Amino acid sequence: MVNTDSLLEFAKHIANQAGVMMSDARDSNRFSEDYKADHELVTSTDLAIDHYLCQQIAIAYPDHQILSEESSPDLSLSDAPVWVIDPIDGTVNFAHGHKHVAISIGLYVEGQRLLGVVNAPFLQECYWAVKGQGAYLNGKRLHVADKVALRNALVATGFPYQKNALDKLIKRVSNVLSQCQDIRRNGSAALDLCWVASGRLQAYYESVKPWDMAAGALIAAEAGAQVGRYDVVSSTWPLAINGDSLLVCRPSLYDQLVQVLCVD
Amino acid sequence: MVNTDSLLEFAKHIANQAGVMMSDARDSNRFSEDYKADHELVTSTDLAIDHYLCQQIAIAYPDHQILSEESSPDLSLSDAPVWVIDPIDGTVNFAHGHKHVAISIGLYVEGQRLLGVVNAPFLQECYWAVKGQGAYLNGKRLHVADKVALRNALVATGFPYQKNALDKLIKRVSNVLSQCQDIRRNGSAALDLCWVASGRLQAYYESVKPWDMAAGALIAAEAGAQVGRYDVVSSTWPLAINGDSLLVCRPSLYDQLVQVLCVD
Repeated sequence: MVNTDSLLEFAKHIANQAGVMMSDARDSNRFSEDYKADHELVTSTDLAIDHYLCQQIAIAYPDHQILSEESSPDLSLSDAPVWVIDPIDGTVNFAHGHKHVAISIGLYVEGQRLLGVVNAPFLQECYWAVKGQGAYLNGKRLHVADKVALRNALVATGFPYQKNALDKLIKRVSNVLSQCQDIRRNGSAALDLCWVASGRLQAYYESVKPWDMAAGALIAAEAGAQVGRYDVVSSTWPLAINGDSLLVCRPSLYDQLVQVLCVD
Repeated sequence: MVNTDSLLEFAKHIANQAGVMMSDARDSNRFSEDYKADHELVTSTDLAIDHYLCQQIAIAYPDHQILSEESSPDLSLSDAPVWVIDPIDGTVNFAHGHKHVAISIGLYVEGQRLLGVVNAPFLQECYWAVKGQGAYLNGKRLHVADKVALRNALVATGFPYQKNALDKLIKRVSNVLSQCQDIRRNGSAALDLCWVASGRLQAYYESVKPWDMAAGALIAAEAGAQVGRYDVVSSTWPLAINGDSLLVCRPSLYDQLVQVLCVD
């Protein structure tokens, strides 16, 4: 039997501590920047927070697994719970001094998202959810309202760092611009998902990695959003933490948005 | 002889008061939403702040003119100074509970931008500049750094509410995505311009109205950014407050970005 209360408290605690590390790094301007092979930015603060989170999880739950940008175990080898973490979701924003940045911590157990915490220290917003127990922002319960016309829907998305296959992506942006209220490109998938939960966005779509969406998708779902796909799933990640063609929105918009985003 | 000190203090004071009105309206959730003929959103808070700003300017400077979304005098009839104001730049963001929202107040005198104040109450950031006297964020002088490669430049833009002529716009987005670090669509032109000044963005481009850019363009220029055009100017607004094809960026990126945004 999993004790979700203590797991949630633990996740909130380490997300909060990681937020302090992030704020300190910005205040002191003490971080270095580097680029991965695919030109994705990584800072020394990403690595420091990743190290801290992994260390804390390993101490508290030594039999659990950890999936992050820096460590990808073979999930098929064990049924142990998997912590799916992103030390900084929105690294480009972090490096540029923006506030739309978050630590994302999800827990995936036996094929399902069990809990998620997304902490945005510069916005002083901490979102969390436990499966079946609702979603919260700083302790306040979130409920997605459903009365909105597609024409008045504010839709967020993101763009991959790999600059190939732009054609379909650009067609989708064009369709959204012509049929919805406007588009937002804020720069943090985890936080955009939480903003669907809090009603600041009516929809979010993008193809992302498990660590970008494991927590945020649960938070959105627990607030009443629909979590689905606008296109095929081509990677082999377990479905609950597979971010391919992710579409998360108010339920009444879902079918229309699948049409808007269909560009074949 | 214009006393810029007292003009600046006045502009900062009314921008600050308008920020309080905006925060109060959000806190109490007391505002209504409506749509203009072109499907542009307007809230009762836009109108209330516009009324407040116009009233204060008329009392303090009865011989000055006011240009806003709600009032467009014939600027050719007088040489009097023109206050160019946007009560809420980022109305969609305001209505959706986002923080990227600002009051923009510019002063245009004898063909030149003289001062600008952009106050973002939810971010607790107030930017200002006086021509020839530098740009400031909450009292701290801003200087645009210039060492950045196009490939590592974060570029913001916006999209018109009128959903025609999307083709060129989409081509520009595609070019930026393939040649720059990433794109941001934050939802407030005035604040995006200030973010170029503060170094959070390396460039901003869009076709906007005078009240969206009169203050922010001066703030960016006074921080050392280059203010220019990526395409033709087709409207008849005076050049200093004409937002057609506006490109504001770090000087070393300017020529490259004009090429990136050229889609003829």
